[in-house]
Amino acid sequence: MSVTEGADPERIGQELDGAVVTVDAALPKPVREGIEEITGRPVGTGEGPRVHVGPDLPRLAPGERLLWMHSTYAGVDALLKAHTPWPTGTLLTRTVGRMGERIGQYVLAWALAELQNIPDYVRQQASRTWNRLPSELADGTLAVIFGTGSIGAGIGAALQRCGVRTVGVARTPRPAPGFDEVVALGTPDGAGGPSAELAGVLAEARWVVDALPLTPQTAGLFGPGLFGAMDGATFFNVGRGATVHTDALAQALERGQVGHAVLDVLPEEPAPPTSPAWDLPRTTLTSHSAGPTTPLDITTDFRTAWHTLRTGQLPSLAVHTAAGY
Amino acid sequence: MSVTEGADPERIGQELDGAVVTVDAALPKPVREGIEEITGRPVGTGEGPRVHVGPDLPRLAPGERLLWMHSTYAGVDALLKAHTPWPTGTLLTRTVGRMGERIGQYVLAWALAELQNIPDYVRQQASRTWNRLPSELADGTLAVIFGTGSIGAGIGAALQRCGVRTVGVARTPRPAPGFDEVVALGTPDGAGGPSAELAGVLAEARWVVDALPLTPQTAGLFGPGLFGAMDGATFFNVGRGATVHTDALAQALERGQVGHAVLDVLPEEPAPPTSPAWDLPRTTLTSHSAGPTTPLDITTDFRTAWHTLRTGQLPSLAVHTAAGY
Repeated sequence: MSVTEGADPERIGQELDGAVVTVDAALPKPVREGIEEITGRPVGTGEGPRVHVGPDLPRLAPGERLLWMHSTYAGVDALLKAHTPWPTGTLLTRTVGRMGERIGQYVLAWALAELQNIPDYVRQQASRTWNRLPSELADGTLAVIFGTGSIGAGIGAALQRCGVRTVGVARTPRPAPGFDEVVALGTPDGAGGPSAELAGVLAEARWVVDALPLTPQTAGLFGPGLFGAMDGATFFNVGRGATVHTDALAQALERGQVGHAVLDVLPEEPAPPTSPAWDLPRTTLTSHSAGPTTPLDITTDFRTAWHTLRTGQLPSLAVHTAAGY
Repeated sequence: MSVTEGADPERIGQELDGAVVTVDAALPKPVREGIEEITGRPVGTGEGPRVHVGPDLPRLAPGERLLWMHSTYAGVDALLKAHTPWPTGTLLTRTVGRMGERIGQYVLAWALAELQNIPDYVRQQASRTWNRLPSELADGTLAVIFGTGSIGAGIGAALQRCGVRTVGVARTPRPAPGFDEVVALGTPDGAGGPSAELAGVLAEARWVVDALPLTPQTAGLFGPGLFGAMDGATFFNVGRGATVHTDALAQALERGQVGHAVLDVLPEEPAPPTSPAWDLPRTTLTSHSAGPTTPLDITTDFRTAWHTLRTGQLPSLAVHTAAGY
């Protein structure tokens, strides 16, 4: 099964020599310079088929053909939704960069901040209050991480370094880096509920991390089924907002099934001051900032994909456009 | 040179069998139970010389002799100051427990919180503001840690796990666990100033950590000499408040030589609401909470010292009472 109908890496690799390479005009100069250096040609010059680097599909001239688009984002759900069906014959790759490492450090930072009561010390500072608060070591706590790809792996690795036990959750469990164990998802909100194994680890978990892409299968995955299996865990969403039912999260926070929540993403972003998300108890919103992408991330991932395609192989960051990731 | 005049471990070890063991009445029950289990006798019973576990010297009956005091604290400066000279013939040991690990995780948590802008996100949450703030990876930043004993080592190890380069500072530099390198202190506020090597790393440092005990040599060590060599570092004090000149720190914060400060300890504790320490810009006080000691920490360190003494050896947590640590 190819990642996209008609997007044959061998054929695309052969066409790269004569391709016109374009870079979205809004991207910073180092991206354009990096792409020119990698492809050995000034952007926008030539007569051949197009290769484009940017957040969205380029506008094509009549008769022009897009060989390959390299997305400057890791999440391609909005792009694929805006362009359904995805154009036949166009390979899509995405930028992951150091996102696993960055999101891993974000989750670790917020977990340690909670264990050290940092938000409360910040509040005490504002009121000039000297009051000793308890702290806990991360060592020996349990994290359950939904998504075992490069971002899940980055989170798992960051937590493991502080002695946290990590359990990954996947549709088809197999050993993965960053995880002490990987368990099956089951059908969280269907008749079966979460798998018995998953329900067991969720009940024990101190940390539950949603690092899922948004696909038809993950939309609304976190509902009463998964939240109901938790017993006081801190819930992080660093995946996509729409994978969570906000009402179910609110109820789980009220019932104490979720102890705290740190949400980097929401179903609707940016959240206006009137958004009900601000009213969730014991919750902090962080404005979709956990996994920033730098110009170097974009050019590094493009470079790898470029060289892989030149050998006729499929880049590891190619998107299976029908599956959505 | 013995740790305390007349406190010969071989003689003390031989006297343990007949010793009366006492535990400060304010300590929690698990400490007393643990000590009874280790020593194989109920506390307070018998006629022999005394062994005492507690925060301070016990009151002795006329003619009673104190063989050994095990302090329930890691810092013994206040104890030694209150009892100068320290009683001849009494061995002093202290409780370190998992303090290196705990203080290491405290420093790591506050460093990551700064890199992830956690205090600002907490403030944004209070005002329902969705605003993306920049974040940085810890990877590749430089930490300079004063004190290369078990607490310094715990801090170094915690930071190294997140890719931070660690430089220790000691009077007599020698390789130590948790440190990529150890440099000489020099005479920070004397004619020579900090050593050239130390001044160089302080200028580059993102993090400077004071993990020193309070001794005649470290009192007021952090003054204009050391702060003047920094260029925007975040300064942590997890050692003792009196190792820092608060005025010099205030000036360094005003000049930007110190970018932020996180102070777990102050020269006067607890800080009343009128303390000028609350007015230090870009500073958070954390109420002497970085290295809590648990009952298990006390009994674990006592157990090791007890068994070491029974073999006639000096416990590694014995205090050199004249040097002060």
